[in-house]
Amino acid sequence: MKASEIRELLKLLDQPGVISFAGGIPDPKLFPAGEAAKAYADALASPASASAALQYSVSEGYPPLTRWIAAHMAKLGVPATQENIVVTSGSQQGLDFAGKLLLSPNDTALVTAPTYLGALQAFSAYEPRYDTLRPEHGNRTPQSYREAASAAGGQVKFAYVVPDFANPTGETLSSEARRALLALADELDIPILEDTAYHALRFEGANVPSIQALDVARVGSLDASRVVYFGTFSKTIAPGLRVGWVCASRALIRRFVLVKQASDLNVSVINQMVMQRLAETRHEALIEAAIKSYRAKRDAMLAALAAYMPKSVRWTRPEGGLFVWATLPESVSGAELLERAVREVKVAFVPGGAFFHDGSGANTIRLSFSLPEPAAITEGVRRLASLL
Amino acid sequence: MKASEIRELLKLLDQPGVISFAGGIPDPKLFPAGEAAKAYADALASPASASAALQYSVSEGYPPLTRWIAAHMAKLGVPATQENIVVTSGSQQGLDFAGKLLLSPNDTALVTAPTYLGALQAFSAYEPRYDTLRPEHGNRTPQSYREAASAAGGQVKFAYVVPDFANPTGETLSSEARRALLALADELDIPILEDTAYHALRFEGANVPSIQALDVARVGSLDASRVVYFGTFSKTIAPGLRVGWVCASRALIRRFVLVKQASDLNVSVINQMVMQRLAETRHEALIEAAIKSYRAKRDAMLAALAAYMPKSVRWTRPEGGLFVWATLPESVSGAELLERAVREVKVAFVPGGAFFHDGSGANTIRLSFSLPEPAAITEGVRRLASLL
Repeated sequence: MKASEIRELLKLLDQPGVISFAGGIPDPKLFPAGEAAKAYADALASPASASAALQYSVSEGYPPLTRWIAAHMAKLGVPATQENIVVTSGSQQGLDFAGKLLLSPNDTALVTAPTYLGALQAFSAYEPRYDTLRPEHGNRTPQSYREAASAAGGQVKFAYVVPDFANPTGETLSSEARRALLALADELDIPILEDTAYHALRFEGANVPSIQALDVARVGSLDASRVVYFGTFSKTIAPGLRVGWVCASRALIRRFVLVKQASDLNVSVINQMVMQRLAETRHEALIEAAIKSYRAKRDAMLAALAAYMPKSVRWTRPEGGLFVWATLPESVSGAELLERAVREVKVAFVPGGAFFHDGSGANTIRLSFSLPEPAAITEGVRRLASLL
Repeated sequence: MKASEIRELLKLLDQPGVISFAGGIPDPKLFPAGEAAKAYADALASPASASAALQYSVSEGYPPLTRWIAAHMAKLGVPATQENIVVTSGSQQGLDFAGKLLLSPNDTALVTAPTYLGALQAFSAYEPRYDTLRPEHGNRTPQSYREAASAAGGQVKFAYVVPDFANPTGETLSSEARRALLALADELDIPILEDTAYHALRFEGANVPSIQALDVARVGSLDASRVVYFGTFSKTIAPGLRVGWVCASRALIRRFVLVKQASDLNVSVINQMVMQRLAETRHEALIEAAIKSYRAKRDAMLAALAAYMPKSVRWTRPEGGLFVWATLPESVSGAELLERAVREVKVAFVPGGAFFHDGSGANTIRLSFSLPEPAAITEGVRRLASLL
């Protein structure tokens, strides 16, 4: 089942009574609509502010926003300045730009299997080959990756990971796995693309330092780091403003800025102004509210899975984020289960196969707990289990 | 002088007393700040609207906006449906996507010399070679373009033009030139990329039908047309919302939509909602006000050029848009004149060389009349002429 077919099927789901674990999108009940309305009004209140809000601007990003982001990165252990930041149209655009800057056809991108579908879509435009990282179960040797890339007519150009509460698995890379990845990247002399979309949404357990923070601590400065950090406000404030960022060495950020300029000049200035205000005044509170809501939903999902699923089904126990990842018996196809689930019990999810670059994972499914309320989650899992 | 050096120099200009003909950007006095504030407030007023405004959305674009755009295209002689439209982050992003979809390294893009610098930046990411269109002075034969492309190791992939009040020359292609371009494109079997950023800003003279409208009239339907139309609200409503569109055959738009999804998912939904409201209620009135303002400024610039410039300088007489293009004596460098103009008489403009793919045009300059008031335009041209 192709991603496009899945999308078609999911379009059928906008009807009452369907419980959807499909969309990996934030709960709109958490959006700060009132504060956003006030921030838009203020951005347009004075002629000087309105002129800036509605005009073209520099490709680097709105300076008060890049200042906020640099200070935010410092709190995460990455001593960034504004020159280490470029604002992008969500972190998705940062991934696209990384593909554009780093990949030529037949080059190799190292990714986990499964990984974020949108990253595969962004990178695939540049016609790479993929090879598989296994950060928690032992990567192959640098030589093995290098030789396979060379045999395919290119070079290994980067390693891409979602280290925290990953889309789609919900799993988090241990410090050891992060350090091993840095060691592999050293040997291959490649950048690590660190996609941190869900990092702020930790419900429990100890924070694991970002790969970029670990690298900066090793090598002494962000400008010497090989890690490219992709951040976003989409899961903490709201995705509809399309504001994310890339944090990396100044030399690399200068190249991203040129790509941004050639691609679409700049992110909407008024949206950057509003996001800066929301980040300045509401970031902590919004994250706190999101954690409280999503934790209750995750708890409902894990409890329902334990109560209703047969022993032959296994699943992850995420410490944060939006996703649980389930592995069905080998003989059960996630895509076929989706068709039955939609028709017979009005439950939706995403079959896991779409997240694998290598065509495997047919017996896996991604269950997002972000949108339904806890009672609906319980009911949805019960219905889904009745099919197994 | 490289584009980056020009930018550095232009950054020096944000100081009182400098008269800038440099930025090719709309006059912020024309932005509908009050209406925009009301539209943002309304988009966020109800929980249902706020949820949609701040959430992810479909990559095709906000349906009420694509409906408005399709109706707008119909008024221009292009019978479009919503399936012929994709919303992009300004028309710049449409140009980037066209390069991504159509160009491989060493392929040939046909462009005028000079042409829009941002188009060259967007296309150059995909490593094409450029060859030169001369729509008003006789293009070469199809065979000549084809053989040159083949010798360079690729094929001719498209022809790109800004047919109305072009950036940078201010000139408009005649109907004959448009038909000749269609005939050339037929022979080469390539798309024509029609960048219409300034089309609405006609001060005088008869409208020339768009190349897409001419093609649809010939071939009978938009789905059979080889023209890809790039539209934008940046010069008529405001650029800061980053909303533009591509209009083309459904088959090609489906490919643009996939590229949009992989690149940055969707244009900010709240900005699309606001733009739809502004387009619905204020499009005609805003264009009328812009034409009135820019016409007076153009008149001031043309009068001052006639009054002060030596006979050795020639310039265009645009019927609309934002730009006059001047050709200096062969021995005078536009880049050197800029350095003198900034230092000695506090006047800025863009040297024309940056707009030529072939390194020519050293003795040309682009004068934008969009930002200064008429009296400042007169004074700025007087000062500039004093250097020549």
